[in-house]
Amino acid sequence: MSDIRGILDQNAFSFDRLQQADERIGALVRKRLETVGPTSMLFYEEPLHIVRGEGVWLFDDQGQRYLDVYNNVPSVGHCHPRVVQAVAEQMGTLNVHTRYLHEGIHRYSERLLATLPPPLNRLVMMCTGSESNDMALRLARQWTGHQGIIVTEAAYHGNTSAVTEVSPSSFKKGSLPEHVHVIPISQMPEQADPSAWFADQVRAGVARLDVLGYGCAALLVDSIFSSDGVYADPAGFLKPAVEWLQAQGALLIADEVQPGFGRTGAGMWGFARHQVTPDVVTMGKPMGNGFPMAGLAAREELLAALNEDVGYFNTFGGSTVAVAAGMAVLDVLAEEALIANARQQGDYLKQQLEVLQSTFEEVAAVRGAGLFIGLDLCNPARDGAPDAARTTAVINALKRNGVLIGAAGKTGSTLKIRPPLCIARAEADLFLDRLEQSIRATAG
Amino acid sequence: MSDIRGILDQNAFSFDRLQQADERIGALVRKRLETVGPTSMLFYEEPLHIVRGEGVWLFDDQGQRYLDVYNNVPSVGHCHPRVVQAVAEQMGTLNVHTRYLHEGIHRYSERLLATLPPPLNRLVMMCTGSESNDMALRLARQWTGHQGIIVTEAAYHGNTSAVTEVSPSSFKKGSLPEHVHVIPISQMPEQADPSAWFADQVRAGVARLDVLGYGCAALLVDSIFSSDGVYADPAGFLKPAVEWLQAQGALLIADEVQPGFGRTGAGMWGFARHQVTPDVVTMGKPMGNGFPMAGLAAREELLAALNEDVGYFNTFGGSTVAVAAGMAVLDVLAEEALIANARQQGDYLKQQLEVLQSTFEEVAAVRGAGLFIGLDLCNPARDGAPDAARTTAVINALKRNGVLIGAAGKTGSTLKIRPPLCIARAEADLFLDRLEQSIRATAG
Repeated sequence: MSDIRGILDQNAFSFDRLQQADERIGALVRKRLETVGPTSMLFYEEPLHIVRGEGVWLFDDQGQRYLDVYNNVPSVGHCHPRVVQAVAEQMGTLNVHTRYLHEGIHRYSERLLATLPPPLNRLVMMCTGSESNDMALRLARQWTGHQGIIVTEAAYHGNTSAVTEVSPSSFKKGSLPEHVHVIPISQMPEQADPSAWFADQVRAGVARLDVLGYGCAALLVDSIFSSDGVYADPAGFLKPAVEWLQAQGALLIADEVQPGFGRTGAGMWGFARHQVTPDVVTMGKPMGNGFPMAGLAAREELLAALNEDVGYFNTFGGSTVAVAAGMAVLDVLAEEALIANARQQGDYLKQQLEVLQSTFEEVAAVRGAGLFIGLDLCNPARDGAPDAARTTAVINALKRNGVLIGAAGKTGSTLKIRPPLCIARAEADLFLDRLEQSIRATAG
Repeated sequence: MSDIRGILDQNAFSFDRLQQADERIGALVRKRLETVGPTSMLFYEEPLHIVRGEGVWLFDDQGQRYLDVYNNVPSVGHCHPRVVQAVAEQMGTLNVHTRYLHEGIHRYSERLLATLPPPLNRLVMMCTGSESNDMALRLARQWTGHQGIIVTEAAYHGNTSAVTEVSPSSFKKGSLPEHVHVIPISQMPEQADPSAWFADQVRAGVARLDVLGYGCAALLVDSIFSSDGVYADPAGFLKPAVEWLQAQGALLIADEVQPGFGRTGAGMWGFARHQVTPDVVTMGKPMGNGFPMAGLAAREELLAALNEDVGYFNTFGGSTVAVAAGMAVLDVLAEEALIANARQQGDYLKQQLEVLQSTFEEVAAVRGAGLFIGLDLCNPARDGAPDAARTTAVINALKRNGVLIGAAGKTGSTLKIRPPLCIARAEADLFLDRLEQSIRATAG
């Protein structure tokens, strides 16, 4: 697993650098170490002290503003007043779980389920994408009687015990459990038909899991392949693999925690670009624009089968406040036409980034859909090899230039571009300008 | 496991009764089935439609008010304005994760860690108690190299794959995994020394897990034994078992999701009543008074060891808004002296319930600490056998009488009394009065 270590550490502050940090930042970092400790990860060569957010902007303690091209949770914009108001009003009125009747959860579920293919007819609510993927694994294993799961090589699906097992990017050492099969999506051919390649990979995975005696319960994929480094095209490349897999009785779990809620600009859900119908859809991050909420949509019979074995209840999941937050997010998405904006600004950004690619030989590739774009940085002097060091340098240069961004991919050399969906043309231009400067400053 | 099924179904609305339900309630139940479906659990013979909460009161859609003696999440009172305001202000200012620096998480962690024994020197934040217990299991297994876990027979520790395995009360059929050993706490002797009995049980569990080759990673207990039916006394009965276990190198995970944050009236933490120092403390429900947040306190070296193997990050855990909610809860606990109130009202309630016990032969036992009290109902005509049917009848009678309460225990015959910590004497008296009426009405 050591070859994917880059993703975890790519943009992490190294605590060894504490001595070099500015005094006020150093004092805060020390506090962090003394309170949260070892699992605390901070971004940047010198961490940022952020104190305020608004729309696409974050502000530090010195009043410096940063264009946020990283955070995909505040998807309708930082501190959107509509969401804040909905949460505040509902918290002041009633905040209870789902074991009493309340119309909020029905209204929200109906509205959200209406955006999904009809077979996905029930919505269970949790607090985090991790909880959602954890339950999805249980549903798939219970339904199929199999244990094996197929994922992509640098996937991240969450942090519970069961979900960490299927999240190669979380492993700092050791190897994945035998029942987890990985597809090396970074080797997906660009010229030949990727859909045939992907289907072959899935077939090989099922064959291997069968031989090992686990069988295949599910293919679990984030259809924008975020932490793998963003693989969006050609739309539809998942279809042959998924149709074959479902015909074998295994399930497709679409992890929409990253591509969902309009980010790809092609409707609400990333999987729809691939013309597949998942058996289970998991969702999280942008669902409440920062209010902790997540969900899982599935066919009723899967939930009924699990429910015969074990009860499932989530104290905070689907609370009156969570559904109020979720409803406000859906309202804002619609009223501000943010999915159309994601498509429009995303197309513009991608096109301009392709211009950048033709200008700088350090830019090896641009991939993406809507406002989820990956840009690969390479070392031209080394035959265009992936360049994680350059990526780190660009990330930190962009920070100094007032733009927040992160990295992804097996080698940690893909810039992950995913601003709030409300980004405007002028802000996209500002990003492009600062990115060009930062690449130029770190080139050669 | 069929003998503990009662806990899950004890106060659940049976969807078979849909035809008999009031028209407006029936319509809402139908909506629930059509949106959430099989995993949706509703309380009561006829579900309640709740629309508003305030302090110790919940209000239904007909304006009827109910004294809440069930819900332990809104521990400082439903919709406490201080918490609502803290969340609204922070949500409107900044709502981001922990990978930027922010003073809020340091201040909150310092304040919370100061309430814990010094060896517990780091705080990791999550969204749910399930996530916290899931990580606790990983810490214990990674630290000890063992897989076995000891829990009590009707315990509930959460809903992830790994945590469901150690939650006997979640199993509707099948049996617990072999690496989970259960202590039959309902058989704990009242006359002889319970601490010797409990230590013997733990020793026997470790011996069995060793023979099976799993070894024992941890004893995972909720020190008030909520879902087992509330076993509080004598304070200290855990001590010999825990000291022996820790000397063997296994860990104590104190699940403070239920007893924590002052509920027992004996300080912040339930484990402290037993004079033990846990290796890991997990917390959840009341931590944010309904804002989804949870935490895990542990010794730094445990977290460092896990962090060498896998990264841990929780998107919403410890967000600027979560810590604002948590800080407001700590403020209210202190300013309204709620721990002292929990002790005072809890002592009064327990004393009055003991009077009830001497009046009604249907009341078999009263156990508890502070505002977490269990009252066993039995059938005097059947040699005082636990009486789940009577418990259900009393719960539903209390609902008709304007009081919300639930059941616990292996046989589902323990009334679980846990009002918000701000309950006043007059409200405690109202509860006692309604309880007496309800027992009388269902007696004989």
